[in-house]
Amino acid sequence: MTPAQPLRVGMVGYAFMGAAHSHAWRTAPRFFDLPLQPQLTAVAGRNAEAARAAADKLGWDSVETDWRRLIERDDIDLIDICTPGDTHAEIAIAALEAGKHVLCEKPLANSVEEAERMTLAAETAAKQGVMSMCGFSYRRTPALALARRFVEQGRLGEIRHVRAQYLQDWLSDANAPMTWRLDKSKSGSGSLGDIGAHSIDAAQWVTGQSITGVSALLETFVPERPLAGDLVGLGGHGDLSGDAPRGKVTVDDAAIFSAKFDGGAGAGAIGVFEATRYALGRKNAMRLELNGTKGSLAFDFEDMNVLSFYDAAESPDAGFRKIFVTEPEHPYVGNWWPTGHGLGYEHGFTHQVVDLVTAIGEGRQPEPSFADALQVQRVLAAVEASATNSSQWQKV
Amino acid sequence: MTPAQPLRVGMVGYAFMGAAHSHAWRTAPRFFDLPLQPQLTAVAGRNAEAARAAADKLGWDSVETDWRRLIERDDIDLIDICTPGDTHAEIAIAALEAGKHVLCEKPLANSVEEAERMTLAAETAAKQGVMSMCGFSYRRTPALALARRFVEQGRLGEIRHVRAQYLQDWLSDANAPMTWRLDKSKSGSGSLGDIGAHSIDAAQWVTGQSITGVSALLETFVPERPLAGDLVGLGGHGDLSGDAPRGKVTVDDAAIFSAKFDGGAGAGAIGVFEATRYALGRKNAMRLELNGTKGSLAFDFEDMNVLSFYDAAESPDAGFRKIFVTEPEHPYVGNWWPTGHGLGYEHGFTHQVVDLVTAIGEGRQPEPSFADALQVQRVLAAVEASATNSSQWQKV
Amino acid sequence: MTPAQPLRVGMVGYAFMGAAHSHAWRTAPRFFDLPLQPQLTAVAGRNAEAARAAADKLGWDSVETDWRRLIERDDIDLIDICTPGDTHAEIAIAALEAGKHVLCEKPLANSVEEAERMTLAAETAAKQGVMSMCGFSYRRTPALALARRFVEQGRLGEIRHVRAQYLQDWLSDANAPMTWRLDKSKSGSGSLGDIGAHSIDAAQWVTGQSITGVSALLETFVPERPLAGDLVGLGGHGDLSGDAPRGKVTVDDAAIFSAKFDGGAGAGAIGVFEATRYALGRKNAMRLELNGTKGSLAFDFEDMNVLSFYDAAESPDAGFRKIFVTEPEHPYVGNWWPTGHGLGYEHGFTHQVVDLVTAIGEGRQPEPSFADALQVQRVLAAVEASATNSSQWQKV
Amino acid sequence: MTPAQPLRVGMVGYAFMGAAHSHAWRTAPRFFDLPLQPQLTAVAGRNAEAARAAADKLGWDSVETDWRRLIERDDIDLIDICTPGDTHAEIAIAALEAGKHVLCEKPLANSVEEAERMTLAAETAAKQGVMSMCGFSYRRTPALALARRFVEQGRLGEIRHVRAQYLQDWLSDANAPMTWRLDKSKSGSGSLGDIGAHSIDAAQWVTGQSITGVSALLETFVPERPLAGDLVGLGGHGDLSGDAPRGKVTVDDAAIFSAKFDGGAGAGAIGVFEATRYALGRKNAMRLELNGTKGSLAFDFEDMNVLSFYDAAESPDAGFRKIFVTEPEHPYVGNWWPTGHGLGYEHGFTHQVVDLVTAIGEGRQPEPSFADALQVQRVLAAVEASATNSSQWQKV
Repeated sequence: MTPAQPLRVGMVGYAFMGAAHSHAWRTAPRFFDLPLQPQLTAVAGRNAEAARAAADKLGWDSVETDWRRLIERDDIDLIDICTPGDTHAEIAIAALEAGKHVLCEKPLANSVEEAERMTLAAETAAKQGVMSMCGFSYRRTPALALARRFVEQGRLGEIRHVRAQYLQDWLSDANAPMTWRLDKSKSGSGSLGDIGAHSIDAAQWVTGQSITGVSALLETFVPERPLAGDLVGLGGHGDLSGDAPRGKVTVDDAAIFSAKFDGGAGAGAIGVFEATRYALGRKNAMRLELNGTKGSLAFDFEDMNVLSFYDAAESPDAGFRKIFVTEPEHPYVGNWWPTGHGLGYEHGFTHQVVDLVTAIGEGRQPEPSFADALQVQRVLAAVEASATNSSQWQKV
Repeated sequence: MTPAQPLRVGMVGYAFMGAAHSHAWRTAPRFFDLPLQPQLTAVAGRNAEAARAAADKLGWDSVETDWRRLIERDDIDLIDICTPGDTHAEIAIAALEAGKHVLCEKPLANSVEEAERMTLAAETAAKQGVMSMCGFSYRRTPALALARRFVEQGRLGEIRHVRAQYLQDWLSDANAPMTWRLDKSKSGSGSLGDIGAHSIDAAQWVTGQSITGVSALLETFVPERPLAGDLVGLGGHGDLSGDAPRGKVTVDDAAIFSAKFDGGAGAGAIGVFEATRYALGRKNAMRLELNGTKGSLAFDFEDMNVLSFYDAAESPDAGFRKIFVTEPEHPYVGNWWPTGHGLGYEHGFTHQVVDLVTAIGEGRQPEPSFADALQVQRVLAAVEASATNSSQWQKV
Repeated sequence: MTPAQPLRVGMVGYAFMGAAHSHAWRTAPRFFDLPLQPQLTAVAGRNAEAARAAADKLGWDSVETDWRRLIERDDIDLIDICTPGDTHAEIAIAALEAGKHVLCEKPLANSVEEAERMTLAAETAAKQGVMSMCGFSYRRTPALALARRFVEQGRLGEIRHVRAQYLQDWLSDANAPMTWRLDKSKSGSGSLGDIGAHSIDAAQWVTGQSITGVSALLETFVPERPLAGDLVGLGGHGDLSGDAPRGKVTVDDAAIFSAKFDGGAGAGAIGVFEATRYALGRKNAMRLELNGTKGSLAFDFEDMNVLSFYDAAESPDAGFRKIFVTEPEHPYVGNWWPTGHGLGYEHGFTHQVVDLVTAIGEGRQPEPSFADALQVQRVLAAVEASATNSSQWQKV
Repeated sequence: MTPAQPLRVGMVGYAFMGAAHSHAWRTAPRFFDLPLQPQLTAVAGRNAEAARAAADKLGWDSVETDWRRLIERDDIDLIDICTPGDTHAEIAIAALEAGKHVLCEKPLANSVEEAERMTLAAETAAKQGVMSMCGFSYRRTPALALARRFVEQGRLGEIRHVRAQYLQDWLSDANAPMTWRLDKSKSGSGSLGDIGAHSIDAAQWVTGQSITGVSALLETFVPERPLAGDLVGLGGHGDLSGDAPRGKVTVDDAAIFSAKFDGGAGAGAIGVFEATRYALGRKNAMRLELNGTKGSLAFDFEDMNVLSFYDAAESPDAGFRKIFVTEPEHPYVGNWWPTGHGLGYEHGFTHQVVDLVTAIGEGRQPEPSFADALQVQRVLAAVEASATNSSQWQKV
């Protein structure tokens, strides 16, 4: 067997997402056969010392303190963008124009306009064989991939209802500190773009339908929060007591919206979405339920190795069947452990690398493309438009 | 012990609801100490023979073929209305004016105007000691009554999120026959009034807050259905095949809406509601989840003896606690079986009788009053108004 | 329709079981069509005043203070025995000899010898058309009746594993008072006969197999308990503090045993059983799981309206299917409420009456017969024998 | 920061367990700070070509075809034994005598005699600072580690009941082929040693008590199975049809036993254990439930990120609390992802490496020691002795 050609990766950012991506780049070739061999060539971060420490810990060969330098390097084939949303457009477009493949974290951008420019750049680059993908990693959860397979096989019939919740609770404490995720200029939006975007992508992808309109309500429960040190120039840990300086929360804490889908071949489903970081006790409840004319599916990321399936043909002895998605026939699973030995959160990122590298190796467009992510961005924008217009129906 | 005075009941209608009410009237005094002794004095139905058979089966002493006659009788103290919504106003107002207590099935009426007239009649009658109550029986589920107790005790803190679903699937088959429940002139609305009304009442009652505005989407998936024999004059079983005459469905099949609550002492919660009869596999999933600043509660009628409670003070070892609501200290439960021996659907009706008879015996206004039910009716009307106005926000 | 002939019932005992049986006698004819019309003719209890109060509350027409008098009465057709196990043999045999049908609570007796005599009396009486049945009411839970149907239909294939637990926790507190249930002379045994007997009957009935041998371990965690007033002659509430007089617990607190089944047509299953009243947090977890060559079934009375079914033929997308046993096609369910409206604990007793009255009306032997209950008694005896003989295997 | 000293690992075997161990060695230093830096120095396997391919795939630097050569190498500090149980004793003793630390897969050996020799070697080596550990990796599941913490904190009080099941179904099909795991000479025992050993170790470790006696039943459901090619010399895929040559299964398919524990400070719990590979639908249900005088705990590896906890002090509103074991305060979890992002099967192996390397780095005896594993071996032997002696009680 000829050794695989290398795929030399440069990653921008090394926080939570950077750690997840690094693990994926290291691990994917150990469990899957890839057409290209990923190499963790360089990581970029503004603080040289911190970047060096991150590189050592996460397994990257070298460090840059400017992402532009990463793009200039000849020994980098792919740029992996793990920074906040306000930087995505600039980095991604520059990378694509320099002929680097791009993996960009979600949401694709902080505005439709940025996402449109990125999509244009992606489509231009694709003609030269330079590929791009947006990091909606939940698609790579085996149970959600199996859900999509069931829909494609027609096991649900025509879909009528989409029920999508993404419930977390880490902001429930009103004294939890301000972060960049609560600053609209950095993050674009709050729960809507951070977690609601995952629900939108998953709902559209699993159903094979696009959202055509929405009616929305956004709410900010805690309008001000104590500033942590690094956000008020204290050079360290801030005073988070009641007297601490407080920053203004400029994003939504919770988003609720109804939606209509374009129906593919059928008549189109209706959907209800909710995203919040204030659902006490729900830690990462990314849930999706579909009701069709023949069956239903339900998923909850808090029990991520399970897909529940209802087959109406089994009536009167029908019931939601708890499929433990750990069989070798299930998506991605055959490359891991024996039946019954579940996977965890980070496997989605490893599978994302597998799908991306496979598509690049085969010269195919990886999914979700920037165009797919732009559609999500348009839904996000429609949600915000409806919410600021008395919840009036807003076409996407 | 002096024997309790009798409370002589006349019931109108004897279908599904009539059977449930009859069981409750028979059973309540066997397990609870009541200030008045219910007697199943008479049942009214248009068809004399059918009414007689029902009376024998359900345990009623006599029969009338006109509900007006029931109201005229001196030996009736209370009228129990178990008919479709289009008849509620006329019967209830006549009964109250005749000095009979009234128990009226939900939804109170088919329009706000009717409900207002009924409420006026109820308030007038109450001054004479004649009482009335609307049959939102889910309030009497021990787990939901315990939920309300928890909210009142402040164990949830200030409530931020209300999440209410009422999911059934009995109309999922597009060839299921037309019924009066799908005829707006009889039922007032579809899933909205039939099951959504339960969710609205439960959400308002458990939180102690009122809904102040909504944005809504209504959908009818199956616009025509085969007419069963008794609806097309076939004198029996109709031909339900593809060639059967079809009737027009004039109500919603599914209702989705977001809501704001008035907050009681706090800032007010936001809510998301969904009611449908097309959620394949969900048989009677009347669910309510509340997230507050201190804790959360979750309930699903498909596991009706359980209340899930999350207490944030137990962090980092917090988790939803599955309270099996079968302890003697729990609402209603002490009068039944030992701990761990769960109750069923009909117990809610028995508890409803207990609460009603106790209030009447003590000369108190039973809850929910017609005024409470009128508030639900106003929410239903606001939902319909928003849905016909591009989902625009509609004040209640 | 000719009115049904009456079936005049005389009940002995009116505590927990008496209340459940009374409800069943009252309710069964309201929801089911019976060949005979039950009448609550008389109840017997030693204390005249208390018996009279119970009769009024529970709906019995008359009172006797000696069960022998009940048997002598010409206007009684059936004796319903709801007393502790030490009295079963005497009452049942006398009743049968007097030509009265008998319903006897479980366990049938406190010894195999008593059970044998009762069975002999039952078989003799049966030749005269006098019927008898033992009250293993869990058989009448729709989900367990559906389980038996599945086994009979071959949907599990040949059964290999039986896993039966009956877990309660009401004795977990070492200061809970002494009761007759902890006195071997009254109750025969502890958790073994009280709740383990239900598991044995259910396992044998659902599988259609008989237990042929066991190896057992019995344990008594709390050897002495405070005596409540009525057990120490204080004429009321006893002092349950540490200084209270204490009585000796003479029964098992927990029972564990392995078992082999006779296999019917197949090779025979192996089983593991556990019964305890010390499993903190388990309130009435009567669980049964069967694993066969084609599928599996699981049941837990704490979620009594659900049967979980695994069909291996659906592999690789197989999974335990949560059947909500509330469809009209399911055992007993069609006579109650619409789909999705669950039943409670007492429905088992109502169904028991239905089955008993139907069998009597049709001149058939009701099930479980005294002979069936004798087989359970023999298993209980074998368990005790093994436990006192170093857990050595004991044939039944 | 001074770079950590290397810990050079030589692994024997590279099948399922080898892949899991390799992933752990690669991953542990990326998420945890270790006192020594693991290096994947060499892997040994008899077939040079296959071993070379495995080394490339799994990330090992070199290959040996004889494990003895691995032990002779100066550049190896630790021998990781991932082979069937019949080889453990010889390899482990040789490695320890050569001054190599040892990690040995479970069960420690195929007999008590072997395990005793291994333990002696381990204790001798420990005096020279050469450490050894047995790979009971389930101890490293965060939820089970939290369970142990709860017991140590006294949150359960005195433990009365242990309920341990390990249910799989991969042998349910009677035509599944013969494997070394079904050959007593290779594997020592069947479900008992393969999965029951995990339950025994977990139960003893979490409770802090040792098993003192057992009564057991072993069963072999399928006594012969088709031989796959590599077991009959066909040099490839065997004919698994009905006519294929069949091999004799010489181990147990299922094991059931009751047990008594030594109670630590308290009176000692009783336990019931079941291990099987024939529980259709149960894929990797390694379950442990403990009932104490103050509370209960329940765990199921099929929902491995959850620990259920019942605190009786919360009565009457107590209930099993579903702790999502993903908080930073929980064992191992803080080094991974944010709250709510669950871990998978292989994390146990990574944590095992963390604990082993930390102990070696700190000069402490890692746990479980060979002596701990010998105690498990003695329980396994007692189970077999009881089963062959009519289930008679057998002291450990």
